[in-house]
Amino acid sequence: MEFTLRQLAELLNGKVEGDESLTVSRLDKIQEGQAGGISFLSNEKYEPYLYQTQATAVIVSEGFKPSKTYKTNLIRVKDAYLGFTALLEAYAQFSKASFSGVEEPSFMDASSSIGENHFRGAFSYIGKNCKIGNQVKIHPHAYIGNNVEIGDNTIIHSGARICTDTKIGKNCEIHPGAVIGSDGFGFAPQEDGSYKAIPQIGNVIIEDNVSIGANSTIDCATMGSTLIKKGAKIDNQVQIAHNVIIGENTVIAAQTGISGSTEIGKNCVIAGKAGIVGHIKIADNTTVGANTGVSKSIKSPGQTLFGYIGFDMKQFLKSYSIFKNLDDLENRIKELEKKP
Amino acid sequence: MEFTLRQLAELLNGKVEGDESLTVSRLDKIQEGQAGGISFLSNEKYEPYLYQTQATAVIVSEGFKPSKTYKTNLIRVKDAYLGFTALLEAYAQFSKASFSGVEEPSFMDASSSIGENHFRGAFSYIGKNCKIGNQVKIHPHAYIGNNVEIGDNTIIHSGARICTDTKIGKNCEIHPGAVIGSDGFGFAPQEDGSYKAIPQIGNVIIEDNVSIGANSTIDCATMGSTLIKKGAKIDNQVQIAHNVIIGENTVIAAQTGISGSTEIGKNCVIAGKAGIVGHIKIADNTTVGANTGVSKSIKSPGQTLFGYIGFDMKQFLKSYSIFKNLDDLENRIKELEKKP
Amino acid sequence: MEFTLRQLAELLNGKVEGDESLTVSRLDKIQEGQAGGISFLSNEKYEPYLYQTQATAVIVSEGFKPSKTYKTNLIRVKDAYLGFTALLEAYAQFSKASFSGVEEPSFMDASSSIGENHFRGAFSYIGKNCKIGNQVKIHPHAYIGNNVEIGDNTIIHSGARICTDTKIGKNCEIHPGAVIGSDGFGFAPQEDGSYKAIPQIGNVIIEDNVSIGANSTIDCATMGSTLIKKGAKIDNQVQIAHNVIIGENTVIAAQTGISGSTEIGKNCVIAGKAGIVGHIKIADNTTVGANTGVSKSIKSPGQTLFGYIGFDMKQFLKSYSIFKNLDDLENRIKELEKKP
Repeated sequence: MEFTLRQLAELLNGKVEGDESLTVSRLDKIQEGQAGGISFLSNEKYEPYLYQTQATAVIVSEGFKPSKTYKTNLIRVKDAYLGFTALLEAYAQFSKASFSGVEEPSFMDASSSIGENHFRGAFSYIGKNCKIGNQVKIHPHAYIGNNVEIGDNTIIHSGARICTDTKIGKNCEIHPGAVIGSDGFGFAPQEDGSYKAIPQIGNVIIEDNVSIGANSTIDCATMGSTLIKKGAKIDNQVQIAHNVIIGENTVIAAQTGISGSTEIGKNCVIAGKAGIVGHIKIADNTTVGANTGVSKSIKSPGQTLFGYIGFDMKQFLKSYSIFKNLDDLENRIKELEKKP
Repeated sequence: MEFTLRQLAELLNGKVEGDESLTVSRLDKIQEGQAGGISFLSNEKYEPYLYQTQATAVIVSEGFKPSKTYKTNLIRVKDAYLGFTALLEAYAQFSKASFSGVEEPSFMDASSSIGENHFRGAFSYIGKNCKIGNQVKIHPHAYIGNNVEIGDNTIIHSGARICTDTKIGKNCEIHPGAVIGSDGFGFAPQEDGSYKAIPQIGNVIIEDNVSIGANSTIDCATMGSTLIKKGAKIDNQVQIAHNVIIGENTVIAAQTGISGSTEIGKNCVIAGKAGIVGHIKIADNTTVGANTGVSKSIKSPGQTLFGYIGFDMKQFLKSYSIFKNLDDLENRIKELEKKP
Repeated sequence: MEFTLRQLAELLNGKVEGDESLTVSRLDKIQEGQAGGISFLSNEKYEPYLYQTQATAVIVSEGFKPSKTYKTNLIRVKDAYLGFTALLEAYAQFSKASFSGVEEPSFMDASSSIGENHFRGAFSYIGKNCKIGNQVKIHPHAYIGNNVEIGDNTIIHSGARICTDTKIGKNCEIHPGAVIGSDGFGFAPQEDGSYKAIPQIGNVIIEDNVSIGANSTIDCATMGSTLIKKGAKIDNQVQIAHNVIIGENTVIAAQTGISGSTEIGKNCVIAGKAGIVGHIKIADNTTVGANTGVSKSIKSPGQTLFGYIGFDMKQFLKSYSIFKNLDDLENRIKELEKKP
């Protein structure tokens, strides 16, 4: 899609300085701008690129005064960063809307329903008794099992697997290869040393405005529901076990694992590769550092944990700085021991 | 599926106290019971919920005496927990049996065969020269490459990928998105600093009664076989490299990784996020803690390892408790150094 | 495919000692050799197996003198190991070439093109405006989004997902379930504690001769490109965030995660389960140990890092060996404190 600079200036409530009939079709970083791209200048550190960029246009803020000559065209708006963000969002909305209709072959059981203005990509599968809302985009190879509910405006990307009985709210995005509602890992030891699967008959409930990253896995509950509350943002390759509860607006970075029946509060930030044991509660507003293990409940909100078995981050770093030269400490003890 | 309380009491060898014509269609936790659900009361801690539950029926043990009035109906059986477990299993069996026939479009090469009472979901793929047993359920988007063998009663879930030459036994369950038999990670360094792939021509053998979790990956052997012995239970997002051997009835929790050519004994328990280096042997009945690294062979069975580089768990925790205040230790040394 | 020993000897520039009309169809380890298989003897440690093996033939080096009688047939070549490697590669080439043509149903938008001698497996999907080279093999259930470019001889395995705008070079291999070009994890915090997705409009560029492992995930850039340079080899379940750059011929083992905007140099070796924070630079030829965290830029090339927060490996191991008995250290301090 091409737009003229005049069209973009109107969209952004700004003014063109240069040739307003030129067209752009791409958003570029200013340092990598090429003909046909539009960029922005917000941080003065990047100003030198303005005088070199090949981008067709650059969005700048009202008060900006160039100190050298430049070849590009300017779109002057109140705040260049916000202006560019508005463009980004318009672009993303447009991209999303471009998926509509039904590609064939695709599969939807006659007992299931889907709302208006949907997309069902080729090889997408929708099982029995599903209720799917309006503007839902089901990309190629997505799998929706039986008895699934999906709210309006949700996107199920290619190859995501939404297993039986899962409920997903509105405005959610499930990225490629994520598996939602597969069996929890529950086995009863038998007398002969073998294990017998404990049927996992619960489901997963995902509330509104949740994002689940590529190849993440969220197991269904043994009974009841594994619950991801509204606004939670979960990155790629995260593992969430059966009966876990993730609080509102909690953010979980890639490759973190959360064991069964643990409850994470709201507005928590959990960095990448963290590991949280089962059957504990983490208070609201807790920050868990990268690669940090959490082995017991965190009762007071607002703490920052870090470490192999996580505790106060500052104290961990103090201890770790001594650990790095632990042989020095031992040598000092040896010296002391030599004293008469 | 709905059942009357009378039907369930017959199935469980129990007696209804209440209206035996009522129907239920769902298994509920007692604290979350709703009309149409059946629950159970086994642990006396949960007794108060009996007097509040909205569940249509609750399974209780023979000797149980209610201390207050209740609105639900009882099914009295010898042991409430075992009775409920029996119901769970009946439910799971029933769910599994509900998948049968062939949904279209699906793909099976004419040179392959599949036994009785199978399910082949839409968009499932079966390559050349495969031999697939009876009651095997191949869900939508499952991929079975060439020359694969699968035993009776095994379930291949949606989007699981069983690559060329893999052999899977009876009563196995391969969860969504798992990849079995992809190439091992083997590259020969060249003089110019680049790497050349070493062909990985072996396969994966999975014996009977094995479970492989969602999005786990098990690489084929360079030559010979990567081997998962009978009864092993492997959770989600586990990585098992080429030529690894996993012993009978060994349990491996989520996000653990096992490097090439390592051999894990039988009846081991490996917790989540553990990492085990290549070319070592782990004795039978070893327990490896969460996030624990194992860097050398474990020769005597029955040990419990824990830690960044794992060693005896109790000793690790003792050391770690001192580490947490390592600055105190240093301060005590400073005090000693000040002594004349 | 069966070959006579005479055919193989010709291929390898060697001589048969035994019955050159016998046929083999499989490559076996010498200790597991069975009739119909061919093996090799290079390391003298394995010589005893020569006298027991059931393999139809064994490749040996020119100078090898058997010390006992044997039942198998020999193919004598200049160097047994190189000879066997040549066979392996011929086998792998042959296997690859065996995939050709188009299986139905498959999907390719009319606006996309694909070169000669390609394979498109059943249920593979190719979106709009894709340019795909010669000898490209697109296996069943592979997903190629819109505007994707793929160079000659690249293999996209079953269920791999190549998202919109991705560019992949020549001779690459993308293993099953890998997700390339899914959205980066970027959210702007809002005043009410919720988060708003920042549109991720960049792409992923993968240069020539790159391998990406099963179920790995590589996110598209926020703007610009996430870049995997030529010759990089990436194992299973690796997570690479938006705007990361991976240098030439860098090797990354399974379950490692690399956070956003970090740049890894060339010829680095990163072991399994490592975690690297965002916005740093790692010098060329750096070695990062298993499960090692890297928290800041590494400026001088050739270092080996190890540890929870990685530093010099030797120093880490020294400190860790004292840590293992930290209670001893404390006891020695206690003794010193008792002194008058």
